[in-house]
Amino acid sequence: MNTSPPPDRRLLQQHAQDNVAIAVQAGGLPAGTVLAGGLVLRDAVPQAHKVALQDIPAGAPVLRYGVAIGHALRDIAAGSWVHERLLRPLPARALQGLPMATAAPPPAPPLPGHTFQGYRNADCSVGTRNLLAISTTVQCVAGVLDVAVQHIKAELLPRFPNVDGVLGLEHAYGCGVAINAPGAEIPIRTLRHLAMNPNFGGEVMLLGLGCEKLQPELLLPPGSLPLHTAQTLSTLRLQDPQHVGFGAMVDHLVQSAVPHLERLNARRRETVPASALVVGVQCGGSDAFSGLTANPAVGHCTDLLLRAGATVLFSETTEVRDAIAQLTARAATPAVAQRLIDEMAWYDDYLARGGADRSANTTPGNKAGGLSHIVEKAMGSVVKSGSAAITGVLSPGERVPPGAPGLYYCATPASDFICGTLQLAAGMNLHVFTTGRGTPYGLAACPVVKVATRSELAERWHDLMDIDAGPIADGRATVAELGELMFRSLLAVASGQRTWAEHWGLHNALVLFNPAPVT
Amino acid sequence: MNTSPPPDRRLLQQHAQDNVAIAVQAGGLPAGTVLAGGLVLRDAVPQAHKVALQDIPAGAPVLRYGVAIGHALRDIAAGSWVHERLLRPLPARALQGLPMATAAPPPAPPLPGHTFQGYRNADCSVGTRNLLAISTTVQCVAGVLDVAVQHIKAELLPRFPNVDGVLGLEHAYGCGVAINAPGAEIPIRTLRHLAMNPNFGGEVMLLGLGCEKLQPELLLPPGSLPLHTAQTLSTLRLQDPQHVGFGAMVDHLVQSAVPHLERLNARRRETVPASALVVGVQCGGSDAFSGLTANPAVGHCTDLLLRAGATVLFSETTEVRDAIAQLTARAATPAVAQRLIDEMAWYDDYLARGGADRSANTTPGNKAGGLSHIVEKAMGSVVKSGSAAITGVLSPGERVPPGAPGLYYCATPASDFICGTLQLAAGMNLHVFTTGRGTPYGLAACPVVKVATRSELAERWHDLMDIDAGPIADGRATVAELGELMFRSLLAVASGQRTWAEHWGLHNALVLFNPAPVT
Repeated sequence: MNTSPPPDRRLLQQHAQDNVAIAVQAGGLPAGTVLAGGLVLRDAVPQAHKVALQDIPAGAPVLRYGVAIGHALRDIAAGSWVHERLLRPLPARALQGLPMATAAPPPAPPLPGHTFQGYRNADCSVGTRNLLAISTTVQCVAGVLDVAVQHIKAELLPRFPNVDGVLGLEHAYGCGVAINAPGAEIPIRTLRHLAMNPNFGGEVMLLGLGCEKLQPELLLPPGSLPLHTAQTLSTLRLQDPQHVGFGAMVDHLVQSAVPHLERLNARRRETVPASALVVGVQCGGSDAFSGLTANPAVGHCTDLLLRAGATVLFSETTEVRDAIAQLTARAATPAVAQRLIDEMAWYDDYLARGGADRSANTTPGNKAGGLSHIVEKAMGSVVKSGSAAITGVLSPGERVPPGAPGLYYCATPASDFICGTLQLAAGMNLHVFTTGRGTPYGLAACPVVKVATRSELAERWHDLMDIDAGPIADGRATVAELGELMFRSLLAVASGQRTWAEHWGLHNALVLFNPAPVT
Repeated sequence: MNTSPPPDRRLLQQHAQDNVAIAVQAGGLPAGTVLAGGLVLRDAVPQAHKVALQDIPAGAPVLRYGVAIGHALRDIAAGSWVHERLLRPLPARALQGLPMATAAPPPAPPLPGHTFQGYRNADCSVGTRNLLAISTTVQCVAGVLDVAVQHIKAELLPRFPNVDGVLGLEHAYGCGVAINAPGAEIPIRTLRHLAMNPNFGGEVMLLGLGCEKLQPELLLPPGSLPLHTAQTLSTLRLQDPQHVGFGAMVDHLVQSAVPHLERLNARRRETVPASALVVGVQCGGSDAFSGLTANPAVGHCTDLLLRAGATVLFSETTEVRDAIAQLTARAATPAVAQRLIDEMAWYDDYLARGGADRSANTTPGNKAGGLSHIVEKAMGSVVKSGSAAITGVLSPGERVPPGAPGLYYCATPASDFICGTLQLAAGMNLHVFTTGRGTPYGLAACPVVKVATRSELAERWHDLMDIDAGPIADGRATVAELGELMFRSLLAVASGQRTWAEHWGLHNALVLFNPAPVT
């Protein structure tokens, strides 16, 4: 990606072949503005929207990121505002005849010596936080669990100062669902793997009701946990006869938490290599700056993380669907390319069964923010994956295999909360989230580093945004500089520095992806 | 339903034609037990399970509730334990050729003079609680809203002692969803109608993010609210430029709550007729006693409520599907019967698209509790609807029309939380929930009266179960007596008496029914 300073700082052209550029000036540009080179704006152009750099005849491709994001519906004169109503969207790229691992880049030079202070787990994963998580089989138990968690926080946590917190992994699955229907394996393995997130220290406390469909044995079948974790598993059921009254349930939960908290509390942060990071990258509330500032900076940071031996997860199937040819070409092997295609095909079918397609992704805010169509959004989204070879693919709810760091396509819907939940299940211990329109997103299980695409947002939401990628737009910083800043910031957060979302205690719900019916 | 005392109190036969009866004795009955009439048990029979009263030849129907719940897979000798492995399930009743309003009973005599103390609303609905609800368009706002609700509880509620509480109506919908796909109207109208629940006093406070798909105008389009409610609507968006920093968002939310709380606080309970009740009935964690004790008592109470002019909602499509012929016959008009059929057909299709059918409903707990198959479960579930004519049908998310009380089939999935959420959207101001296995279910928006099917559960969960229907099983009370007790109890709870779930602050999540894809 070419983001070298443009001839006029009020416009940013992302690729030398592009016939549009982005109006980067706060407040937009008025009609009649004379730009460097003599281009005169024919329309007022809102900030983050596109300007035609040359005459674009009807039917010709409109090029951004060096690729077509649509075709002109009529002649577009140079200096015009190129908005969504002037563009004919492209059909989805066919999933046949794709380049298979034809352009996998060679490994970049290693970047040794970077470390952070983390919690080593017995399975060789590393936590960036030291949390007690209480897994649940079913929503029925959530009310009792909420009360018990309040008791644990008030009565127990003060005795265990090295424990960062306690959380209930509550969800809407577990009963009233077609548990044997196609697709039901997705929410089940998601819950199983959530319980094993590195930030939970190998302690598994599982709360069930008793009569639910998702029995504890289905959720954590014998042998599914690493041996060391299985030794630290405790399972409770509210319907067990020992629970005489509500108080007995709460007491049992609180008392069962004690040995878990004792073991967690005995742990200390240790110096560990940066390769222990499993970073999930995501964007939400995107605008046209997302693909111009924050996402390219994340992409640069992704490259640094991979050179340091870490794992990076990128996701959001409907937002990468239109970049499939780039991704299959970048796959490390034809087998990886095929798995990418399989995930796209599965999702195409899933959407078609429900009477939708990938174009259902874009939001009013995306469009107001200058993203004309899903193709433009996808091209700006996928840059978060950087430039390295894609070494693996995870189906929804799958976990990164032990001892195999690298760049993974973690197939998830683009919904912020479903994506975050599936990345947690994949083993994410640190989350990077870019936003242009602004969202106060947070997760209880994992720190979320939020990156603003524009300085105006970073300033207005000064105590919610952790990093400002806006300086890229006006030339105050390069993508590489911001990417390096982000890399250092991630190591600091991984070592315990709190994000704004953690400071305020902001976190969103876990949302499972269940493509099967409810009953 | 015939629940007159049986010849032997250890067994309960529900209909004179039944060839099985239920073992009601705690602990079950050992093999060799000699019952009244000389029947000798050939097997040990667990409590709530079925005993063959006579020899049942292979292929013959096994009759409970006077209807076939399956066919014998082999010869079953009198005195045998009739468990699910001896039964061939029945196929679903075809939806053609059903009796259409052929057996609608005439209206029962009115039951005047019953009242409760409720909060009158401007739209003529009545609240049983006086709550400030903050509606949301999207999950993105949940973290900020949680913090704001804590502030409102701590700083404002003490000044407004007549307000029972404040709650955020948080959910997983609103973005990352195919908002124009078939079925998307269901979650949208559910959220719209949730905001108008009678327990929220006509005050609508709506919190959005700004860029989400479910814009406030989609959720509450102009004109969708009654005029008096529209005057009390306030809408906030976190992305509005006035919010400089997190503190400004929280302050704005807290300050916006004040006029709503002032109006709510000025209200007082008044004597209102029982006809203002909108009672949602539901069962969950069912066992074979559900259809023997608690559900028939609810059915009797339903009849009393309807005679008093109230509205009763019964639900759970997969649990009534096998009773469709009874229901279409009981419909008040052929048009109502047709709407029942339409809802069943829609759900059959929905399940089939996902590779499932109604038999996916039953749980391990149901089966352990003696419910062999979905047909037996359905026959025991539908008795909650009592014996009156069915006067209306609501599609998922629809609301009871003003001025039209009666018995409604409120079409919902059987999932406890989806059903409860949809009944709230339909206008429910009081909830009755029966359980045999036991669940601590609760809702923040509405009192939930929980009814145990067995005295053992009611005693063990003495501070979670509000009513014990167990005395019906052993002849200590009749169905009519328990139904009358329940009717009086509902009037007391509607007047402000707290349920156990309210006492402990137990409540579950709102869960929306979204049959459309996520993106």
